[in-house]
Amino acid sequence: MTVVYKLNVFKDPEQLNQNVFAAQYAVRGPLAVRAEELRAQLKEKPDSLPFTEIINANIGNPHQMGQIPLTFIRQVLALCQYPALIENAEITQKLFPSDAIARAKELLEETGGIGAYSSSQGVPLVRRDVARFIEERDGFPSDPNHIFLTTGATQAVRMMINLLIARPYHGILLPIPQYPLYTASMALYGGRTVPYYLNEETNWSVSVEELQRAYDAGTAEGTEIRAVVFINPGNPTGSCLNEKAIEDILGFAKRNGVIVIADEVYQANVYDLPFVSFKKVLSRLQTENPNDAWDKVSLISIHSVSKGQLGECGQRGGYMEVTNIPEAAFKQIYKLASIDVCPPVAGQFIVDILVRPPKLGDPSHDLYHKQIKDVHEQLFKQCRQLHSALSSMKYVKCQEPRGAMYLHPRIFFPKKLIETAKAQGAEPDELYCMELLESTGICILPGSGFGQKENEFHIRTTFLAQGEEYLKHYVAGHNKIMEKYE
Amino acid sequence: MTVVYKLNVFKDPEQLNQNVFAAQYAVRGPLAVRAEELRAQLKEKPDSLPFTEIINANIGNPHQMGQIPLTFIRQVLALCQYPALIENAEITQKLFPSDAIARAKELLEETGGIGAYSSSQGVPLVRRDVARFIEERDGFPSDPNHIFLTTGATQAVRMMINLLIARPYHGILLPIPQYPLYTASMALYGGRTVPYYLNEETNWSVSVEELQRAYDAGTAEGTEIRAVVFINPGNPTGSCLNEKAIEDILGFAKRNGVIVIADEVYQANVYDLPFVSFKKVLSRLQTENPNDAWDKVSLISIHSVSKGQLGECGQRGGYMEVTNIPEAAFKQIYKLASIDVCPPVAGQFIVDILVRPPKLGDPSHDLYHKQIKDVHEQLFKQCRQLHSALSSMKYVKCQEPRGAMYLHPRIFFPKKLIETAKAQGAEPDELYCMELLESTGICILPGSGFGQKENEFHIRTTFLAQGEEYLKHYVAGHNKIMEKYE
Repeated sequence: MTVVYKLNVFKDPEQLNQNVFAAQYAVRGPLAVRAEELRAQLKEKPDSLPFTEIINANIGNPHQMGQIPLTFIRQVLALCQYPALIENAEITQKLFPSDAIARAKELLEETGGIGAYSSSQGVPLVRRDVARFIEERDGFPSDPNHIFLTTGATQAVRMMINLLIARPYHGILLPIPQYPLYTASMALYGGRTVPYYLNEETNWSVSVEELQRAYDAGTAEGTEIRAVVFINPGNPTGSCLNEKAIEDILGFAKRNGVIVIADEVYQANVYDLPFVSFKKVLSRLQTENPNDAWDKVSLISIHSVSKGQLGECGQRGGYMEVTNIPEAAFKQIYKLASIDVCPPVAGQFIVDILVRPPKLGDPSHDLYHKQIKDVHEQLFKQCRQLHSALSSMKYVKCQEPRGAMYLHPRIFFPKKLIETAKAQGAEPDELYCMELLESTGICILPGSGFGQKENEFHIRTTFLAQGEEYLKHYVAGHNKIMEKYE
Repeated sequence: MTVVYKLNVFKDPEQLNQNVFAAQYAVRGPLAVRAEELRAQLKEKPDSLPFTEIINANIGNPHQMGQIPLTFIRQVLALCQYPALIENAEITQKLFPSDAIARAKELLEETGGIGAYSSSQGVPLVRRDVARFIEERDGFPSDPNHIFLTTGATQAVRMMINLLIARPYHGILLPIPQYPLYTASMALYGGRTVPYYLNEETNWSVSVEELQRAYDAGTAEGTEIRAVVFINPGNPTGSCLNEKAIEDILGFAKRNGVIVIADEVYQANVYDLPFVSFKKVLSRLQTENPNDAWDKVSLISIHSVSKGQLGECGQRGGYMEVTNIPEAAFKQIYKLASIDVCPPVAGQFIVDILVRPPKLGDPSHDLYHKQIKDVHEQLFKQCRQLHSALSSMKYVKCQEPRGAMYLHPRIFFPKKLIETAKAQGAEPDELYCMELLESTGICILPGSGFGQKENEFHIRTTFLAQGEEYLKHYVAGHNKIMEKYE
């Protein structure tokens, strides 16, 4: 008897969507996978490796690194998950402050509860609170109808790239180095990444000349450039844009007709310079110069509950504000949101607390703001310690950090390391990071995953790991690798 | 002075991704939007409309319709959100049963807490529990490494269509009628929907002859058909496949080399026939006939916490199991998951409880299973009541419901209604649904959003609304519309 069958397309990867194959996402790539294997090995046989723990400095995941969640957020979420606690007033009042109970009631009444789908754009009450937060932050109006609540910041990026890339010759200007979600999404939607380079020597600053050079170069190659991404404060660079720089950038966007995507998820992670939003500068320009066509500049501003002092990555909450978007395009953004049905409602509730924290006089006010301050100071301390450790290392040069959760030092590898890597078909910084992981348990990422100039090498590391003990291992491990290849 | 500016692509919708424009998602379309407007109007001016409440029978959103969340789930989630409760043992033991406390501890220890990113494929403990659940359900092995935890079922569908559609002539066989997430996603990724029709007269059954006809017709038109979707139990049809039907379908898939996507989110919503999974039948065929190439059939099985008796839609939890997928393709699925970073951790925890409910002898066992039984019986009762109301209506014919949360009756509209709709540029069933909404506040959806044969008309309604009062308004409102056009 002959068995009748036909092989399906999975048999032949080349028949699958090659955009997926082209996408690279270093943050969750081979180093992260190997770190998990080593962690499992440590659990099984604790003595089998030359270190006792894995330090995940590869991804901005604060709670995994021991950062404590903010009490008020978790109290409200616990009550929303289990509203029977609210009804049990006598016991509940011992465990929960009255403002947490009131907030939970308010959120539950506004929705069908945390287990019901919300509207696709997000819970209206939360969107009103986001708009008020933006108004207070910037001093300019914000419209709740222009707010979309999102599943982290990731969904916002995906939706915008999906809408903007219609043909293989459509492109978006991306900073180099950049957070690889952007290059991965561009690859996935089949668009062209047009790189503009940040200037490392001046703390990874953005220059309009470089933006224009990149725009002209892309255009000359036949790329239709539709948007430009800024990550401010910077991932992986830790840089921070001032008001003048943003004004210049918006001028570039206006002259060239490119949409601005401002990834501002680290807006609360700033250390010396104040954070200035793109929305504020655009609003000011529109107000001050009503005849200068600033209303022709479309802006997508992105924020998240995963970063800042909250660090609630696993809850997948965020929002985007869309400014100067014509109705026909707005409808398509709404449709994309609706096909994702709705963001997690718990994440939406956390957005509400992010933008409307306990007020002065509320029972939770002092604790909430003390916790925010403690986390902020702790992160800054870790940042300084890591920066000082990196600066003490041979062959390493690190810019002053100003924000975000990362340092992105340059490494000047010995020639032998570069040759060894090339012989293995690996990037030199990949080889370095893998050797560091295998010898110390510290997982950092190669600059090649974030983009860098040819023949330059960097590493990206978070400063979320606590204590100084691991830094000793880091410095020793680094020096050992360097000595091996000197 | 000349103001220098250039308009960006938002100015001209035709320059945006036309796949987004082509996507249609009726479940969240104009009727849902209008229902929200009317709800707001009722809140503002309660007497301004001929009804006192909006009945959302347009979307399977159980908690919004008053279904109560399962206590054990919410207890575990509350403890995971606010672990300080666990430490406060004396009070906590009064409020939470010991098995809820133990489960919360277990989940927290396995992860970095509910606020940390998990691995992109999902928390390993939860994946092991899912695999054990599948083994017990089917009597065949399941591998935790073949499980992906997902953001609802939606992410699973999006990832698979993204990977499978590489060219505009690639297609997927979709049932008609279908849940419009599928046609919307196909439009979004630029693939061809190849329709196969369910047979309404035999309770919306699937026939292999019809599948083959659709496959051959699609192929003849130059479409390369890569996969076939089954929604079982059916949305919007409420139908249910038996073991023999699934075996025949898998034979069709094997002969034609198409990947099977089995959307089984309603597997716990069955009323007379038992649920049989595609995975079980495929495993049995592979075991019984080791030489018959059943291992060449690739299967993607999808489940969710949004449906069943949990109804936790807003928490966005789900999983997919991938069977007989070669390593190279598996890696790309993993990469797509990693670009989404991770599903909401709270949703993953709920998946854990879905697949590992309290055991006999555990303190929460009796309540959990009583609640499951109550919800199940309540839904069945509502289903019967709605079916009986529909059957009493003029011009309506409704199949016997067997599962899911929907009824999908056919309506034989008077000629005048059809002509009026066409004159307005609307589908007749759209006009009917809009008139019903405006006159009764009941929001149901036109069959045209789900697909139907030419010159046939249907409506889709959930049976989640409680009580019989609304059914009287429904019958009266229906009859009034029909009399108007008779």
